[in-house]
Amino acid sequence: MQLLDGLSVSKTIKLELKEQVEKRKSENKKIPHLAAVLVGNNGASQTYVNAKVKACNEVGFDSTLIHLTEDISEHDLLFEIEKLNLNPDIDGYIVQLPLPQHINEKKILLAIDPMKDVDGFHPENVGRMMLNMKTFLPATPMGIITLLERNNIETSGKHAVVLGRSHIVGLPMSILLQRNHPFGNCTVTLCHSKTKNIEEICKSADIIIAAVGIPEFLRGDMVKAGAVVVDVGITRVNDASKKSGFRLLGDVNFEEVSSKCSFITPVPGGVGPMTIVSLMQNTLASVEHKE
Amino acid sequence: MQLLDGLSVSKTIKLELKEQVEKRKSENKKIPHLAAVLVGNNGASQTYVNAKVKACNEVGFDSTLIHLTEDISEHDLLFEIEKLNLNPDIDGYIVQLPLPQHINEKKILLAIDPMKDVDGFHPENVGRMMLNMKTFLPATPMGIITLLERNNIETSGKHAVVLGRSHIVGLPMSILLQRNHPFGNCTVTLCHSKTKNIEEICKSADIIIAAVGIPEFLRGDMVKAGAVVVDVGITRVNDASKKSGFRLLGDVNFEEVSSKCSFITPVPGGVGPMTIVSLMQNTLASVEHKE
Repeated sequence: MQLLDGLSVSKTIKLELKEQVEKRKSENKKIPHLAAVLVGNNGASQTYVNAKVKACNEVGFDSTLIHLTEDISEHDLLFEIEKLNLNPDIDGYIVQLPLPQHINEKKILLAIDPMKDVDGFHPENVGRMMLNMKTFLPATPMGIITLLERNNIETSGKHAVVLGRSHIVGLPMSILLQRNHPFGNCTVTLCHSKTKNIEEICKSADIIIAAVGIPEFLRGDMVKAGAVVVDVGITRVNDASKKSGFRLLGDVNFEEVSSKCSFITPVPGGVGPMTIVSLMQNTLASVEHKE
Repeated sequence: MQLLDGLSVSKTIKLELKEQVEKRKSENKKIPHLAAVLVGNNGASQTYVNAKVKACNEVGFDSTLIHLTEDISEHDLLFEIEKLNLNPDIDGYIVQLPLPQHINEKKILLAIDPMKDVDGFHPENVGRMMLNMKTFLPATPMGIITLLERNNIETSGKHAVVLGRSHIVGLPMSILLQRNHPFGNCTVTLCHSKTKNIEEICKSADIIIAAVGIPEFLRGDMVKAGAVVVDVGITRVNDASKKSGFRLLGDVNFEEVSSKCSFITPVPGGVGPMTIVSLMQNTLASVEHKE
């Protein structure tokens, strides 16, 4: 078994990005600028946003964190979005999800300028992805494809099983894996809560992407020997023995599955860091697109 | 075996549309107006466009056929598109594909106002479909879902195998079958030219959508007893015994497959008429949306 070491790959990509930023500086070109909008004080969201800002600093991007209070009105949040759309210095921005209950997430999503939507969540970008047109790919699926690519995982003609049909991971993942692309061309089966005989389907998979959000959902007896397993799950589980009070569990039972598969992502250190560098790559692409 | 009789279902839907047009007339509301752009003299394209105009007449819609010569420039075609976008009387329009080689289809597609894109091909509408938002669904996949619905075919938890990943049939079909919807919730496997052991995958399917464009691709020994089979293919094959000089073949070997499955669409008279009524339904929805 080999680790699909997202942390290590992400470090390489950050170095590549840093080089490109330096090259841009030497050519007097604009430094990429990513903004992140965080509403409220959700612990996990704060951690994610902080990691994104930190990554910007590491590669030399400009970054702006817009931290708004939990009780901001939808109207005022839309006003913040509009300011970001109009600000020529901001090349891309994300609105960290989930948003508070009183705010309509879809309305916010639709307000983001597709040209600055580096998360790739706007319908126009989603549609362009589906039609295999140039666009911002959603960061997590994009990061997974990059991870497969950098590890030279053969995908063409393989049976990929995607567990979970979320709009930000499972569904776009199924699209990217099937498309006619050097790291696509899989036969893809998309499974979800209504799927019957999920064990049997998983056992037939050459590649499994687990994105159901259920800790240790994928067990050893569900995986074929030699399969490639990507674990997107990251759930905080209470753990009094930890200083933080919790530990992080993926959707894959690592101990059982790792002994059977050929490649597997760890949690943490697998998909998470790849998501962040994908966001950086999209932000750089946004600046380049304007040139 | 029962026929999924698209012709019969389409007649029912046309009657429903006709009733709605008459109701609109009595309320002095706008009559839906569909336009079709046809470039050149491709025989199949002319047949399709004529069928759409005829269907408009049948249900009482206004229709406009814009027939342009094969040698029209891309620039002039874009000008025609812009006129349709700006014409408030046109509620929806389609540009019949394929277009001549010298015209960039994607450029034309992107020029269509998404609010008039009743074919559902514009990236914005494709993305909205994928995100399960209100939109114009692409006519053929929409027609197939309606056909399943009107025949009360249970889909939830079933294994649906889609053959073909085209942007206008296979890929959107896979999206619609997986979504959380009364006639969705399938476990979907999307197969294409790079798929290995396609026979085995088909044999595991409860529902098969054949959209590969290869006459009689699906044979009897590839289908499980009791499966539901939808044939999207329609290929003209030379046949000297016919007055037209050709006959139409689907992607399914009807004789072999029909003896094994529970439901099957005929060709012609299956998916084709459903595609046309879906276009009509989208055009009506377009008028209603503006009210």
